[in-house]
Amino acid sequence: MTIQTVISLPQGVRDILPEETKKITAVETSILAVFERYGFARIITPLLEYVETLSLGMGESLKDRVLKFIDPSTGRVVAIRPDITPQIARVVATRMRDYPLPLRLCYNENVLRYQEPRDGKSREVLQLGAEFISAGPTPEADAEMICMAVESLLALGLKGFKIDVGDVGFLRAILDRLNVARAERERIKGAIAIKDSSGLDAILAGIGPKALSTGDRRLLLNLTTFYGEEEVLKKAAAFTTGAETAAALANLERVMEIIAAKGFKDFITIDLGEVRGFDYYTGIIFEGFATGIGKAILSGGRYDTLPAKYGYPVAATGFAFDVENIVTALDRKF
Amino acid sequence: MTIQTVISLPQGVRDILPEETKKITAVETSILAVFERYGFARIITPLLEYVETLSLGMGESLKDRVLKFIDPSTGRVVAIRPDITPQIARVVATRMRDYPLPLRLCYNENVLRYQEPRDGKSREVLQLGAEFISAGPTPEADAEMICMAVESLLALGLKGFKIDVGDVGFLRAILDRLNVARAERERIKGAIAIKDSSGLDAILAGIGPKALSTGDRRLLLNLTTFYGEEEVLKKAAAFTTGAETAAALANLERVMEIIAAKGFKDFITIDLGEVRGFDYYTGIIFEGFATGIGKAILSGGRYDTLPAKYGYPVAATGFAFDVENIVTALDRKF
Repeated sequence: MTIQTVISLPQGVRDILPEETKKITAVETSILAVFERYGFARIITPLLEYVETLSLGMGESLKDRVLKFIDPSTGRVVAIRPDITPQIARVVATRMRDYPLPLRLCYNENVLRYQEPRDGKSREVLQLGAEFISAGPTPEADAEMICMAVESLLALGLKGFKIDVGDVGFLRAILDRLNVARAERERIKGAIAIKDSSGLDAILAGIGPKALSTGDRRLLLNLTTFYGEEEVLKKAAAFTTGAETAAALANLERVMEIIAAKGFKDFITIDLGEVRGFDYYTGIIFEGFATGIGKAILSGGRYDTLPAKYGYPVAATGFAFDVENIVTALDRKF
Repeated sequence: MTIQTVISLPQGVRDILPEETKKITAVETSILAVFERYGFARIITPLLEYVETLSLGMGESLKDRVLKFIDPSTGRVVAIRPDITPQIARVVATRMRDYPLPLRLCYNENVLRYQEPRDGKSREVLQLGAEFISAGPTPEADAEMICMAVESLLALGLKGFKIDVGDVGFLRAILDRLNVARAERERIKGAIAIKDSSGLDAILAGIGPKALSTGDRRLLLNLTTFYGEEEVLKKAAAFTTGAETAAALANLERVMEIIAAKGFKDFITIDLGEVRGFDYYTGIIFEGFATGIGKAILSGGRYDTLPAKYGYPVAATGFAFDVENIVTALDRKF
């Protein structure tokens, strides 16, 4: 056996050679300059966290994807950070309470996610993200984050990209009104998640009018059509009953107004049937894709309950770029 | 118990808030610009390595300071990288053999060292380093690295600093000629390491003339005086017998000539009794200190046997800055 065959890398990590690193550095520098122009200050979070601490603020979907081990010096379970957002929430809650709000923070770090759903493997991700922490939620803050994402991508010379914007508050309000068992509720969410209309039809057919109002039934059955440009919001509003659902739509409408005023409307697609990060986010969610690339180049949303889990009841919205996926997008030949 | 008291960080990692991160970013940007001007291309190495792979190229002193765990997907022992240099050696040996030599590579990464000798704790270190890989060792390459380190520090506006330069080849040649048991040899090295002259006297007194020549005895007893400006080299040369010792001195003299021609002589102190990293380095070693700061701001040296351990017999010299220690040095008020 030669030395070369013995040398291999653990799953999910890789060497990035000079040519690609040069592109990564250029992307990092350009995006951090846009973040700085928007007034975001960089912070550096630690590579390791106690799992106990991290768990307070981690979304369910990430909990099984954390690389954990026993710290030999304390016997406590330590994790390599799978996400920077809970760390920022912790830092703000424990060490930055005397800073005036709103707080605009950004970061440029490596995270490690074990068992990507697609292939069961871990992956080291270079994340470049921003978080906006304020006393209460505002559509202006959400719009600022989406506009900053668009400006960052335009500054890189990327043109063909779309940001899908949804709001977990919209669907959550409907599901909360549903008078069914938790398992049934999860099945509905599951069908919506994979945009399985006929599956959703079948599930809803088995639910009586006492458990699901006629209005909400129509709304759920039409959910997959609430996808497209801003007129989707008007269409959904016509179906909507209930204050929370209406409030989510009104917020989204205001966000879209600000984005349109910035001239960035064409980069946005509205998708009210998006349930990604349902357990973690509390309002707007968004995810960006470059034409021809299946993997997201950015994702984010509002997570108002997270800082409170670390003892500081403030509102927060943010997103992170996947730097390597952006480089892939910039490398496309079309 | 409040949430705040539950929230703590694993040993050796910390949050870096905006004020300090701003300084770190400025240091990183400034140094990377100097590296780029010298023609060094950045690469990105993975956060994790198999311990088996890492061990091939790791210095003895680091081996016990690696944070290891079992990769749940493969059952193999994985480590968080404690050092970037062995990773660069691996990358060059396995993936960059078709790149023309010399190769100038640099990096800006976080490493994790468990059990710092001083306090038994781990520490996440932000390392910014450079490696010069060439077909064979040259004093020009060593001088280039030291000059680049000086220029990087000057570009930051740092003035009060010194780089201690030694050569493990000098002392190794003497110790290799010593005809004593391994334990005795280690005791001698230990006394030299802590500059314990009287301890060294006592050990050498017990060694007969057959095991230690009169010339080498005089040389070892005078080792602590081979410390200071470049005339130290002439002084040591007068004591020196043997081709290897002379070769190490001649190399160091040539390196000093180049540094002097650059006008950087005043930043250098020669220390022929320095044995730091004895098992890892093969020639010149150097370590930089800012006035008033006990911790090194940079360290490096020549490690010609390392790439061969990954199957590529080339020569290499390099160093890394400790970014946080540089920020501490810049923060001094004098």
